[in-house]
Order: sequence, then structure tokens, then C-alpha cells
Amino acid sequence: MEDHEKGYFTEKDSEEVVIGRNKNAKDERLKEVMAIVIRKLHEAVKEIEPTQQEWFEAIMFLTRTGQMCTDWRQEFILLSDTLGVSMLVDAINHRKPVGASESTVLGPFYVQDAPELKAGTNICLDHKGEDMVISGFVRDTTGRPIPNVKLDVWQTNDDGFYDVQQKGLQPDFNLRGVFRTDEAGRYWFRAVKPRFYPIPDDGPVGQLLGKLGRHPFRPAHLHFIISADGFQTLTTHIFDSTDQYIDSDAVFGVKKSLLANIERVTDLVRSKELEFANPFWETKFDFVLAPESEAASSERTERGKVIAGAQR
Amino acid sequence: MEDHEKGYFTEKDSEEVVIGRNKNAKDERLKEVMAIVIRKLHEAVKEIEPTQQEWFEAIMFLTRTGQMCTDWRQEFILLSDTLGVSMLVDAINHRKPVGASESTVLGPFYVQDAPELKAGTNICLDHKGEDMVISGFVRDTTGRPIPNVKLDVWQTNDDGFYDVQQKGLQPDFNLRGVFRTDEAGRYWFRAVKPRFYPIPDDGPVGQLLGKLGRHPFRPAHLHFIISADGFQTLTTHIFDSTDQYIDSDAVFGVKKSLLANIERVTDLVRSKELEFANPFWETKFDFVLAPESEAASSERTERGKVIAGAQR
Repeated sequence: MEDHEKGYFTEKDSEEVVIGRNKNAKDERLKEVMAIVIRKLHEAVKEIEPTQQEWFEAIMFLTRTGQMCTDWRQEFILLSDTLGVSMLVDAINHRKPVGASESTVLGPFYVQDAPELKAGTNICLDHKGEDMVISGFVRDTTGRPIPNVKLDVWQTNDDGFYDVQQKGLQPDFNLRGVFRTDEAGRYWFRAVKPRFYPIPDDGPVGQLLGKLGRHPFRPAHLHFIISADGFQTLTTHIFDSTDQYIDSDAVFGVKKSLLANIERVTDLVRSKELEFANPFWETKFDFVLAPESEAASSERTERGKVIAGAQR
Repeated sequence: MEDHEKGYFTEKDSEEVVIGRNKNAKDERLKEVMAIVIRKLHEAVKEIEPTQQEWFEAIMFLTRTGQMCTDWRQEFILLSDTLGVSMLVDAINHRKPVGASESTVLGPFYVQDAPELKAGTNICLDHKGEDMVISGFVRDTTGRPIPNVKLDVWQTNDDGFYDVQQKGLQPDFNLRGVFRTDEAGRYWFRAVKPRFYPIPDDGPVGQLLGKLGRHPFRPAHLHFIISADGFQTLTTHIFDSTDQYIDSDAVFGVKKSLLANIERVTDLVRSKELEFANPFWETKFDFVLAPESEAASSERTERGKVIAGAQR
């Protein structure tokens, strides 16, 4: 029997020694997850060959990251976001059939129970920034329009903040609303041209970004959660394709299919109709919902159930 | 140009998108380390396929681990220890030539400036537990004894606690001392038979061990830091080979070459000489020091310098 099979440590077989120790774990999913985590962690350490000092720096970085977290600040989610892990988990859990609109991260600023508004309502309550009208169709993967689709939308104001980041400074539910498609599958509403903004960068994650020569900005975008009976709910953004940060989103949320053209309109008749200044901005963006039947891989769903069971 | 080369996210090439974003990092070593971390992290996520709920559980585990840390409790080091990472980093940094004694982890309870004592001194000041005498030779890799080697030793008392864990309850420097080899390269001192003890298991790491069906115990051991001019300093333990946890050390510190025979002695003449009860315990353990010239890989040392430079 080799040393590592007896439970003794060897550099060569370090993964096997550590993974072998979990043989009595009752939760099969946790055992499987930890085996992968341990293998990849040891592979990384063997490839990096950290000095003791570097190892200690990593320990202290993780410690500072944990200690930065409060009820309203989640620095580990920020770390996950800025390393592309949040987007990867989102992608794995929302694989879509060909032709369906792609998802992106929810982000931390979604608020439930935004008011349901009449098509065309202007959700900009603070009267800052440049007027914008957004419209489009929601269809199924065969091209048929879907009526009565619910679109929950939110965005920052012209200063680059969500209402919940500036409670008291912005009107409640500023730049939030719930709209529905009409019989032709069309939605529309009025808002403001979105602005890029930084993720919170005054903590350990911001410092890491700085050392990596990275900026903390997200390109201008609008958030959507789009849901309809019989279809998979779609959580996504549309992005201003001309934003200076469009190819360097700090949280990697941009997918090519989510780029929108935001166009300048100088039409006095239309600006008057929309009760807008002239010129204003306009974007048209169509969504395609995947049928509910084509859900995420059932294998992963089964795994999820195992974990959920163990947590009860 | 592919989507991911433009900086847009794709599930397939997620590693490349994220690693590509660090191209402007000034610190080459940090850039290299982060590329490996990101690659292994994404590989792990792709293999695990976590549900959103599982991802969130991982975020909250890391958060709790960070928030458990204080000036006197380092839960992330405990996590590193219990996943075998601390031992791996130790092994990478202390590769020894054939024949030299192996290292193991320092542990959190080392105290500098323990008193230098005459050979044979009994370091057990609380008179608890069963008497033990420890002796042996320190040699170089050619078999020549090394005189005047410094051996800094420490261990728990019979209740399984180090003096610094029970300040006021144990005499200061209980079960600590610095000894030197004589002209023949021999050391010896008197102490107490060591006991197994648990690592702190009342935090997130202890909960994880529980879920993995693992106990928190370290098998009985004595700590040594052994140093001499012209030789690599050796930080190691010797373990009681009969301990019930010898093949399941919670922190993976056990290496086969560090197993010691601790034997029961029923010799009235010797126990009287040693001022011991009868019977007592005895262990003989020889160490071999590696010459200073065979240091850890110079490549890694160079990398270390880059990091050290960047931190100034």
C-alpha cells in the first residue's frame, strides 16, 4: 500500500489523500463537489507554486473580502462577478435553445413589486438625463408574437445610481416598472438614456482590479426580467453598443446578442407626441422566449434537489 | 474575430474572456497567478455545474469563514489546513534532497524566545500526564553528526492544549524549550507523552468537516524547528505512530517518515535516574538536515521576489 493510501501526506498524491478523507460524507452531491474543488485547488497550487508569503497574502485577501461583507454589501459576490464566475453560473443554469434571447446576471439592485404601468409610461421620475423611448416585440422561437408578456424593467438614473442606492435622494421606484405586451406582442415605455457606472470599488475586490490594471465600470444597460405562462423566464440586459466600456464590462455581463442600437432622433412631431425634448434617443429591441419544456439539464436539476434536501 | 476575443462573454470561452481582461496588469507574477486561478476556478465551475442556490451557499460559506476571523482565530488558514493546501504549500517550499528529514506544517502555536535549556531538562512544568524522555542524533546527509544544532521544541499538555491557549491556567513556556546537540550530535530532553487534540471546530470549517463525515483531531505529536549554520532550517513534527488518528490527521500533517515509536519502559534504575514515575515512555528519533546549498527551486524564489517587490 502506498503512503497516500494509508492517509499520509505526499506532495505527488496530495489530491488523493485529501479527497479520500471525505469517503464518509453522507451527502453525495457535497462529496462530488468537494472532490472537484480539492482537485482543482491542488492543481492550481501545484501550478502556481506559491511562496509561503504569497499563500499568506491569499489568506489575508480572502479574510478582508469576508470582513467587507455586511447586510448591504456582498464582497464575495463582487469577487465572483469580477472573475466571471457569476456569469458562468448564470450561463450554465440558463442554456437556451437556438434563436432564444440570451440571459445575463440579475445584479444586486432588482426590487420586487415595482408598479405595473400602462404601455408607454415614462419611468423616469427625477427628470434627469436624456429622454429615451424603448420598444420591441416578444416572440416565441417559431416567430409568433406572445401577448400579455410581463416585462419587469429597471435601470440607473443619469448619475449612474439605482433608486435603492440613493434612498431619499431619488423618488421611490424611479426608473422601475412592470409592462405587458399587447395583442401583437409589442411592449414600449419611456425612460432615460442609461449611463455607465462603477461597481463598488472601495474594498479588496476594487484593490485587486486596480492591481490587475482593470477599471470598475459596467457599460450602460437596461435590466429586464421577462416572463410569460408556458415560457422560461428570461433575466437579461440590453446594452448601449456604443458605450466606451462595452468590450470591458467589469462583471462580464455583455453578450454580443444583447447589444442594442440607441439612436438619436430629431423629429419634432415625434418628440412632441412623446412629450420629450428634441432630440431624444430611441432603441428597438426584440426578445425571443424559450418554451418552458426546454429547461436546464435535468441532471443538474437532480443534483440541485440533493443539495436542497441536505440543507433542510 | 470571435465574440470572446472582443471581450463579450461566452460560456465556452469564459476563461479566455476573463484572463484576457488582465492584460494590463503591471505585476507579471500576479498576472500569471490570476490566470491560473481563473482557469482552475472556471474548470471547477464547469465540472460542478452548480445551481444558483449552490453557488450562493458557497458565497455564504466563504463569507462566514471570513467573518469568523479575529486577531486570534484564522478560519481561512484552518480551511487551507483541512483541505491539505497548507501542507502542499509547505511541501512545495521545502523539497528536501533524498535522505533528509521531511518538513510538516508550523501550526499556529509556535512562540518565539522560548528559554534555552540544558540537555535533559524536563519542559513539563504542570506535572500532568505521563513522563516521556526524547532523544536522538542530528546528522547531515552524509551521516556525519552535527554538533551545536538548535532544536526549538513545543507540544500540548496532557489536556491537549498549548500553553498559549490556556494563559494563566498553564505555567508560561510550559512544554517549550530550546535545546542544542552535543559534540556527538545528540540531543535529549524530558517532557510528557503527547495527546491528540481537536482543531477549533466551532466555526464554518468545523461544520464543513462534520458534513464531510470528518473528525477534527490531530494525532499526538511534538513540534521541532531544527537549525544549524550551513543547513536548511527544518520545521517538522514527530508523531505517536500508535495514535488512533495517525492515518486521519485533520490537517494532513502526517508523513510516513515522521512516525515515531513511543515505547513503554519499566526499568526502575532508569526511571530513578530520570526522576520519573515507573513505568515511563521513551522515544528515540534522529533527524537529517539538508545542506543550505540545496535550497528550494530558484525559479520559485525569483517569483517570490517579484511579489515582494510589488507589495512594497
